[in-house]
This record gives sequence, structure tokens and C-alpha cells, in this order.
Amino acid sequence: MTQNIYDTPEFFDGYSRMARSVHGLDAAPEWPALQAMLPDVRGSRVVDLGCGFGWFCRWAQTQGAAEVVGMDVSQNMLDRARATTPSPQVAYVHADLERLHLPWGRFELAYSSLALHYVEHLADVFAMIHRTLVPGGRFVFSAEHPIYTAPAQPGFVQDATGQRVWPLNQYSLEGPRTTDWLAKGVIKRHRTLATYLNLLIQAGFTIRQVEEWAPSAEQLAAQPALAEEQDRPMMVLVSASR
Amino acid sequence: MTQNIYDTPEFFDGYSRMARSVHGLDAAPEWPALQAMLPDVRGSRVVDLGCGFGWFCRWAQTQGAAEVVGMDVSQNMLDRARATTPSPQVAYVHADLERLHLPWGRFELAYSSLALHYVEHLADVFAMIHRTLVPGGRFVFSAEHPIYTAPAQPGFVQDATGQRVWPLNQYSLEGPRTTDWLAKGVIKRHRTLATYLNLLIQAGFTIRQVEEWAPSAEQLAAQPALAEEQDRPMMVLVSASR
Repeated sequence: MTQNIYDTPEFFDGYSRMARSVHGLDAAPEWPALQAMLPDVRGSRVVDLGCGFGWFCRWAQTQGAAEVVGMDVSQNMLDRARATTPSPQVAYVHADLERLHLPWGRFELAYSSLALHYVEHLADVFAMIHRTLVPGGRFVFSAEHPIYTAPAQPGFVQDATGQRVWPLNQYSLEGPRTTDWLAKGVIKRHRTLATYLNLLIQAGFTIRQVEEWAPSAEQLAAQPALAEEQDRPMMVLVSASR
Repeated sequence: MTQNIYDTPEFFDGYSRMARSVHGLDAAPEWPALQAMLPDVRGSRVVDLGCGFGWFCRWAQTQGAAEVVGMDVSQNMLDRARATTPSPQVAYVHADLERLHLPWGRFELAYSSLALHYVEHLADVFAMIHRTLVPGGRFVFSAEHPIYTAPAQPGFVQDATGQRVWPLNQYSLEGPRTTDWLAKGVIKRHRTLATYLNLLIQAGFTIRQVEEWAPSAEQLAAQPALAEEQDRPMMVLVSASR
């Protein structure tokens, strides 16, 4: 079962203040790359797994999606999503991804942003997503990159020559990683990038594109602090089709 | 054009003494994983791109391949491959992968071991390999993992707590990496794992399996020094189909 850290008061409070929580998709530096991997959603039925405050659901609706269903394990986030979404085409459902059973062949697009690295039984979740897509349907997601989740001490350090390096270790040792991020004891499920891809393939998906997100030249010019994202990817973005 | 470091005397001398050069596939710890990704080669036509001393070519022949063509840029290695291969089903050809044009629809299996990270124009090489495979043909290769090729200083260090860490940086900065391995000035072409996969997809391949090689429990018990391979993968293994 996925830990619901989002409803821990200190986590929710901290998360609510993040730029991407306040300002939405345009404050997420990976959004342009992720958006470029999406199909045209006009007339499509879309499910967002781990919808948070509903920013993507509202975006999909404005792009002409026929129906959007946002799902999240956090009641606090769903409450705010509902309060800020006036559209009747968007529905929000409380659900734990690992206990969810969606109808077969129900959606043209499944989307998930930065949620799957919390999922313990990913093979089951991928199989469920595959079933709920129509043939030819697309699954586009982001997750924390395995390079980011792997280390025992996940923070940049300086090497002997003063260079910034990411202290990678235990990359192939898959399993829980407990970190203190916004709250103590946040449990992520580390798995290799190969495992993400092989589980998708085993679920029946065809891999269409993989991006290990790094800032564009324009983003770097506007936000020089993003340079460290060139040293090690924090996020992986994947597009797959049923 | 790919650097032919193999015919530099000091490199060839050092390389010739490596366990995998002396003892062949069984001395390559990734071989069991790579072998498990191969199709049955009985009756198949097989091309090995970067065949070195011909160990894989001879193995494929003993497995019943109808025809095996080994290609390499190193004359020294080809000379030894020819001298140690008695089988008329195996032919060796001197070729630079980046200038090679193979006949269309000519092989059931293309194989390449630890050669592609030297290739500068990988998109062209993948397109050439796709063309020379029959429909349904397979392409199985290993390459140095981008985590391994990325760093400015590619060697393990100890962090402040004494833990072994791999000092990853400049992961997303693709391009040449000059290292001193067996000889000075060995030029590898660093690219991200996403780029390897996207170039395959763009060439028309379907990704079937990806492995970021790490030792098995049995290998670790027999060779405890392999534990560092769990901290960061040195090799990526990929199976794709036309």
C-alpha cells in the first residue's frame, strides 16, 4: 500500500507552498517536456493518477478533453482540487493507486505526475493502467529518476577538486528509501530505470519516448540554479502506448 | 568517425590481457544476463558489430547459427579472431561501424558488445542496423552505462561518512569523454540512457528489454569485488526488435 504522506499536516503545509502547488504547471520546469510527450487530448477521456490539486485535470479540460477523472490518495488535495475546478467535465475520486480497479478500455490517456515512485507494487498498477486504456491509448508519466532516489545520502556534495557531484550508490538495490522531505519518514520506492521500462513492456505497453529531464538553454538562462539538474536527472518522463 | 584505440600498441597489449580477452565470454560477468536476452540463433544469420577476438562469433557458431559475420575496426583483433576461428561459417570483416553499409534484410540477429559508446553518430548506425535486419529480427547489445561514462572524474570516492559513492555529474551533457584506460586519450561518446532508447525507437525498433547490469547473488558470493557494481551500473544491456 502506498504511504499517504500528503495528509500529514507538515507535509501538506510544505507541499502547498511549493511553486508548482501555488502556480501550477507553468511553475514545474519539466512541464514543457512532459507536455510535448502528450497526445492531443481533444475529445479524449483522460485519467490523472495522483492528481494533487488538479492542475493537470483543469489543463486537460481547457484543451478540450471530453472527460477528465482525477484520482488521489490525499483528501486534503482533492478538497482543494474540487474547490478550484468549476468544470462539470472534471471529476475527482479518492483512491489508493494500489487498490484501484478502473473499468476496462475506459480512457484514451492515462497521466501521472511524480506519483509512481511512491508505489510499492508497480507491476500491478501498470497492468491496471494498461487494461483501462483503449487499444492505441497512451500512458504518459513522470517519476523521480532512479538516480535521484537511489543514494543513501541523496544530496549534492563537493569532491576533492571542489566539483559538485551527486553521490550515487546502491543503484541496483531496489526497495524503500526513507527520506526527510517536507516531513520526516517519507517512503519512496526505489527501482532502476530498467525496471520501470521492463514492467511497462511486460504489462503490454510499447515504449515511445523516454526523457531524463534536464533544463533547456532558455530555462537555464532564466533560472541558473537549474544547472545542477544537468549533473544528475531528478525526473524521468515516459510515454508508452497500449 | 570512431577512434580506433584498439590498435594503439599499449591499449591492445592491455586489452589482450583482460580476463574476457583471455578466457572469453565466461570471464565477462554480464554475459549470462546478455545471453538470456538473445534469441535462439540456430539457423540464423548473425552479425557481430565490434567482434574483437571473435569470442561471440565462435559461440554463435557452436549454437548452430547458419552464418556469422564479425566486424571490427581493429586489424590486430581481427587477425587474432581469424587465427582462432576454424569454422568456415564465420567470416571476419574489417570495418568502421560509422562507415559501414550492410545489405538490407540480411541478418536475423545483430549483436554488439561494449562498442557503441565509442560511436559518434549513433542514429546513423542504428538506422543501418535496422535496415540490415529482417522484419522481426533482433538487435541485442551492451554498452558502457551513461552513469559510468558521464562523470568528469569517473572513479569511486568515499563520502564524509566513509561510504563508497560514484561521483556523478554532467549526466545530461552529451558528448566526448576522454579517459585514460589502458592507454591515454581514449575517447568515449557519452549520451544519456534516454538517448540510446529514443534513437532506437526513432530508427524503427521496438524496445523489448533493458538491463542495467548488476551481479547476481551467486556472482557476488564468488567475486565479492563485484559489490561496487551494485552502487552504479557500468553496463547497459538492451534487446530490441525490428
